[in-house]
Amino acid sequence: MMWKEDALLLIYVALGGALGSVARYLVAAALKGVWSNHFPWEMVFVNTFGCILVGFFAAFLYTKFPHPRWAMLLYWGFIGGFTAFSSFIKEGLHFFLHGDHLTGFLYLLLQNTLGLLAASVSFWAGKTFF
Amino acid sequence: MMWKEDALLLIYVALGGALGSVARYLVAAALKGVWSNHFPWEMVFVNTFGCILVGFFAAFLYTKFPHPRWAMLLYWGFIGGFTAFSSFIKEGLHFFLHGDHLTGFLYLLLQNTLGLLAASVSFWAGKTFF
Repeated sequence: MMWKEDALLLIYVALGGALGSVARYLVAAALKGVWSNHFPWEMVFVNTFGCILVGFFAAFLYTKFPHPRWAMLLYWGFIGGFTAFSSFIKEGLHFFLHGDHLTGFLYLLLQNTLGLLAASVSFWAGKTFF
Repeated sequence: MMWKEDALLLIYVALGGALGSVARYLVAAALKGVWSNHFPWEMVFVNTFGCILVGFFAAFLYTKFPHPRWAMLLYWGFIGGFTAFSSFIKEGLHFFLHGDHLTGFLYLLLQNTLGLLAASVSFWAGKTFF
Protein backbone atom coordinates (compact mmCIF):
# COMPACT_ATOMS: atom_id res chain seq x y z
CA MET A 1 0.00 0.00 0.00
CA MET A 2 1.43 3.31 -1.15
CA TRP A 3 0.20 5.45 1.76
CA LYS A 4 1.75 3.02 4.22
CA GLU A 5 5.15 3.41 2.52
CA ASP A 6 4.72 7.21 2.52
CA ALA A 7 3.75 7.23 6.20
CA LEU A 8 6.82 5.14 7.00
CA LEU A 9 9.05 7.65 5.19
CA LEU A 10 7.54 10.49 7.25
CA ILE A 11 8.37 8.53 10.41
CA TYR A 12 12.00 8.42 9.23
CA VAL A 13 11.94 12.22 8.78
CA ALA A 14 10.40 12.64 12.25
CA LEU A 15 12.93 10.32 13.90
CA GLY A 16 15.92 11.96 12.19
CA GLY A 17 14.53 15.45 12.89
CA ALA A 18 14.02 14.64 16.58
CA LEU A 19 17.57 13.27 16.96
CA GLY A 20 19.11 16.12 14.94
CA SER A 21 17.29 18.82 16.94
CA VAL A 22 18.27 17.27 20.29
CA ALA A 23 21.89 16.99 19.04
CA ARG A 24 21.83 20.68 17.99
CA TYR A 25 20.51 21.73 21.39
CA LEU A 26 23.05 19.63 23.31
CA VAL A 27 26.06 20.68 21.21
CA ALA A 28 25.05 24.37 21.37
CA ALA A 29 24.48 24.13 25.15
CA ALA A 30 27.85 22.41 25.65
CA LEU A 31 29.71 25.02 23.58
CA LYS A 32 27.88 28.14 24.75
CA GLY A 33 30.14 30.17 26.98
CA VAL A 34 33.30 28.23 26.06
CA TRP A 35 34.44 31.44 24.37
CA SER A 36 34.37 34.47 26.62
CA ASN A 37 32.84 36.96 24.17
CA HIS A 38 29.20 37.08 23.05
CA PHE A 39 29.75 36.00 19.47
CA PRO A 40 27.51 32.96 18.79
CA TRP A 41 30.39 30.61 17.90
CA GLU A 42 28.30 27.62 19.01
CA MET A 43 25.82 28.23 16.15
CA VAL A 44 28.68 28.81 13.69
CA PHE A 45 30.07 25.42 14.76
CA VAL A 46 26.71 23.62 14.59
CA ASN A 47 25.78 24.96 11.15
CA THR A 48 29.28 24.45 9.70
CA PHE A 49 29.40 20.89 11.02
CA GLY A 50 25.94 20.31 9.48
CA CYS A 51 27.35 21.48 6.13
CA ILE A 52 30.20 18.94 6.42
CA LEU A 53 27.53 16.28 6.92
CA VAL A 54 25.45 17.51 3.98
CA GLY A 55 28.49 17.44 1.66
CA PHE A 56 29.23 13.84 2.61
CA PHE A 57 25.58 12.98 2.25
CA ALA A 58 25.39 14.44 -1.27
CA ALA A 59 28.66 12.84 -2.42
CA PHE A 60 28.75 9.51 -0.69
CA LEU A 61 25.73 8.41 1.32
CA TYR A 62 23.13 9.35 -1.27
CA THR A 63 24.85 7.21 -3.93
CA LYS A 64 25.71 4.31 -1.57
CA PHE A 65 22.29 4.15 0.06
CA PRO A 66 19.86 5.22 -2.65
CA HIS A 67 16.70 4.01 -0.85
CA PRO A 68 14.53 7.06 0.00
CA ARG A 69 14.48 6.10 3.68
CA TRP A 70 18.14 7.14 4.03
CA ALA A 71 17.44 10.55 2.49
CA MET A 72 14.45 10.89 4.84
CA LEU A 73 16.34 9.82 7.96
CA LEU A 74 19.63 11.60 7.28
CA TYR A 75 19.07 14.51 4.88
CA TRP A 76 15.49 15.68 5.60
CA GLY A 77 15.59 14.40 9.17
CA PHE A 78 18.91 14.47 11.00
CA ILE A 79 21.01 17.05 9.13
CA GLY A 80 18.00 19.32 8.53
CA GLY A 81 17.05 19.12 12.20
CA PHE A 82 20.64 19.58 13.36
CA THR A 83 21.21 22.81 11.43
CA ALA A 84 18.89 25.81 11.77
CA PHE A 85 18.55 28.71 9.36
CA SER A 86 16.26 30.41 11.92
CA SER A 87 18.99 30.48 14.62
CA PHE A 88 21.50 31.71 12.06
CA ILE A 89 19.25 34.68 11.17
CA LYS A 90 18.15 35.31 14.78
CA GLU A 91 21.76 35.61 15.98
CA GLY A 92 22.63 37.87 13.03
CA LEU A 93 19.59 40.10 13.64
CA HIS A 94 20.60 40.41 17.30
CA PHE A 95 23.76 42.33 16.27
CA PHE A 96 21.85 44.63 13.89
CA LEU A 97 19.17 45.42 16.51
CA HIS A 98 21.95 46.39 18.94
CA GLY A 99 23.51 48.69 16.36
CA ASP A 100 26.57 46.50 15.84
CA HIS A 101 26.15 46.32 12.06
CA LEU A 102 29.75 45.41 11.28
CA THR A 103 29.72 42.34 13.57
CA GLY A 104 26.30 41.36 12.19
CA PHE A 105 27.56 41.58 8.62
CA LEU A 106 30.76 39.65 9.45
CA TYR A 107 28.72 36.98 11.24
CA LEU A 108 26.49 36.46 8.19
CA LEU A 109 29.50 36.45 5.86
CA LEU A 110 31.35 33.96 8.09
CA GLN A 111 28.46 31.49 8.29
CA ASN A 112 27.82 31.66 4.53
CA THR A 113 31.52 31.25 3.67
CA LEU A 114 32.25 28.48 6.19
CA GLY A 115 29.04 26.64 5.19
CA LEU A 116 29.92 26.68 1.48
CA LEU A 117 33.54 25.76 2.19
CA ALA A 118 32.60 22.90 4.54
CA ALA A 119 30.05 21.47 2.09
CA SER A 120 32.46 21.77 -0.89
CA VAL A 121 35.39 20.10 0.87
CA SER A 122 33.31 17.26 2.30
CA PHE A 123 31.55 16.78 -1.06
CA TRP A 124 34.93 16.55 -2.79
CA ALA A 125 36.35 14.24 -0.07
CA GLY A 126 33.23 12.05 -0.19
CA LYS A 127 33.57 11.63 -3.97
CA THR A 128 37.34 11.08 -3.88
CA PHE A 129 37.99 8.81 -0.91
CA PHE A 130 34.80 6.79 -0.39
CA MET B 1 14.67 15.61 40.47
CA MET B 2 16.80 17.77 38.18
CA TRP B 3 17.73 15.14 35.62
CA LYS B 4 14.06 14.25 35.18
CA GLU B 5 13.23 17.89 34.39
CA ASP B 6 16.18 18.07 31.96
CA ALA B 7 15.10 14.83 30.25
CA LEU B 8 11.56 16.21 29.90
CA LEU B 9 12.93 19.36 28.23
CA LEU B 10 14.88 17.21 25.74
CA ILE B 11 11.65 15.39 24.91
CA TYR B 12 10.08 18.77 24.07
CA VAL B 13 13.03 19.51 21.74
CA ALA B 14 12.64 16.05 20.14
CA LEU B 15 8.88 16.43 19.67
CA GLY B 16 9.18 19.95 18.22
CA GLY B 17 12.10 18.89 16.00
CA ALA B 18 10.18 15.88 14.67
CA LEU B 19 7.10 17.98 13.83
CA GLY B 20 9.17 20.82 12.35
CA SER B 21 11.21 18.49 10.14
CA VAL B 22 8.10 16.68 8.85
CA ALA B 23 6.47 20.08 8.18
CA ARG B 24 9.59 21.22 6.27
CA TYR B 25 9.57 18.05 4.16
CA LEU B 26 5.83 18.28 3.41
CA VAL B 27 5.86 22.01 2.57
CA ALA B 28 8.96 21.63 0.37
CA ALA B 29 7.45 18.57 -1.39
CA ALA B 30 4.16 20.42 -1.97
CA LEU B 31 5.89 23.51 -3.38
CA LYS B 32 8.62 21.79 -5.41
CA GLY B 33 7.86 22.12 -9.11
CA VAL B 34 5.14 24.76 -8.60
CA TRP B 35 7.53 27.15 -10.34
CA SER B 36 8.74 25.94 -13.73
CA ASN B 37 12.44 26.81 -13.37
CA HIS B 38 15.00 25.01 -11.20
CA PHE B 39 15.50 27.74 -8.63
CA PRO B 40 14.84 26.23 -5.16
CA TRP B 41 11.99 28.61 -4.29
CA GLU B 42 10.53 25.98 -1.95
CA MET B 43 13.58 26.26 0.36
CA VAL B 44 13.50 30.07 0.13
CA PHE B 45 9.85 29.91 1.23
CA VAL B 46 10.49 27.41 4.05
CA ASN B 47 13.47 29.30 5.51
CA THR B 48 11.82 32.73 5.17
CA PHE B 49 8.64 31.45 6.81
CA GLY B 50 10.79 29.99 9.62
CA CYS B 51 12.32 33.45 10.12
CA ILE B 52 8.82 34.96 10.45
CA LEU B 53 8.17 32.39 13.18
CA VAL B 54 11.49 33.09 14.93
CA GLY B 55 10.80 36.84 14.97
CA PHE B 56 7.39 36.28 16.59
CA PHE B 57 8.95 33.82 19.01
CA ALA B 58 11.64 36.29 20.10
CA ALA B 59 9.22 39.21 20.45
CA PHE B 60 6.03 37.67 21.70
CA LEU B 61 6.01 34.00 22.63
CA TYR B 62 9.23 34.04 24.59
CA THR B 63 7.94 36.84 26.85
CA LYS B 64 4.37 35.47 27.13
CA PHE B 65 5.42 31.89 27.80
CA PRO B 66 8.71 32.15 29.72
CA HIS B 67 8.78 28.52 30.88
CA PRO B 68 11.79 26.77 29.23
CA ARG B 69 9.51 24.07 27.79
CA TRP B 70 8.09 26.57 25.26
CA ALA B 71 11.58 27.55 24.09
CA MET B 72 12.43 23.84 23.81
CA LEU B 73 9.25 22.90 21.94
CA LEU B 74 9.01 25.94 19.65
CA TYR B 75 12.45 27.55 19.26
CA TRP B 76 14.92 24.66 19.63
CA GLY B 77 12.38 22.10 18.41
CA PHE B 78 9.81 23.20 15.85
CA ILE B 79 11.32 26.32 14.23
CA GLY B 80 14.85 24.86 14.31
CA GLY B 81 13.62 21.62 12.76
CA PHE B 82 11.46 23.45 10.21
CA THR B 83 14.31 25.59 8.83
CA ALA B 84 17.56 24.08 7.57
CA PHE B 85 20.89 25.85 7.12
CA SER B 86 22.22 22.66 5.47
CA SER B 87 19.60 22.75 2.68
CA PHE B 88 20.23 26.46 2.21
CA ILE B 89 23.97 25.83 1.66
CA LYS B 90 23.44 22.64 -0.37
CA GLU B 91 21.14 24.41 -2.87
CA GLY B 92 23.58 27.33 -3.13
CA LEU B 93 26.56 25.04 -3.67
CA HIS B 94 24.62 23.27 -6.43
CA PHE B 95 24.70 26.46 -8.53
CA PHE B 96 28.43 27.04 -7.92
CA LEU B 97 29.32 23.42 -8.80
CA HIS B 98 27.41 23.83 -12.08
CA GLY B 99 29.34 27.01 -12.89
CA ASP B 100 26.31 29.28 -12.40
CA HIS B 101 28.07 31.57 -9.94
CA LEU B 102 25.79 34.56 -10.44
CA THR B 103 22.62 32.58 -9.62
CA GLY B 104 24.40 30.98 -6.65
CA PHE B 105 25.42 34.36 -5.31
CA LEU B 106 21.94 35.83 -5.85
CA TYR B 107 20.37 32.81 -4.15
CA LEU B 108 22.56 33.27 -1.03
CA LEU B 109 21.91 37.01 -1.01
CA LEU B 110 18.16 36.49 -1.39
CA GLN B 111 17.90 33.99 1.47
CA ASN B 112 20.02 36.16 3.81
CA THR B 113 18.08 39.31 2.97
CA LEU B 114 14.59 37.76 3.11
CA GLY B 115 15.49 35.96 6.34
CA LEU B 116 16.65 39.15 8.08
CA LEU B 117 13.70 41.12 6.71
CA ALA B 118 11.16 38.47 7.75
CA ALA B 119 12.61 38.16 11.27
CA SER B 120 12.82 41.98 11.73
CA VAL B 121 9.25 42.64 10.57
CA SER B 122 7.74 39.82 12.63
CA PHE B 123 9.83 40.82 15.67
CA TRP B 124 8.57 44.41 15.34
CA ALA B 125 4.97 43.25 14.74
CA GLY B 126 5.16 40.85 17.69
CA LYS B 127 6.34 43.63 19.99
CA THR B 128 3.84 46.17 18.68
CA PHE B 129 0.58 44.30 18.26
CA PHE B 130 0.65 41.43 20.75
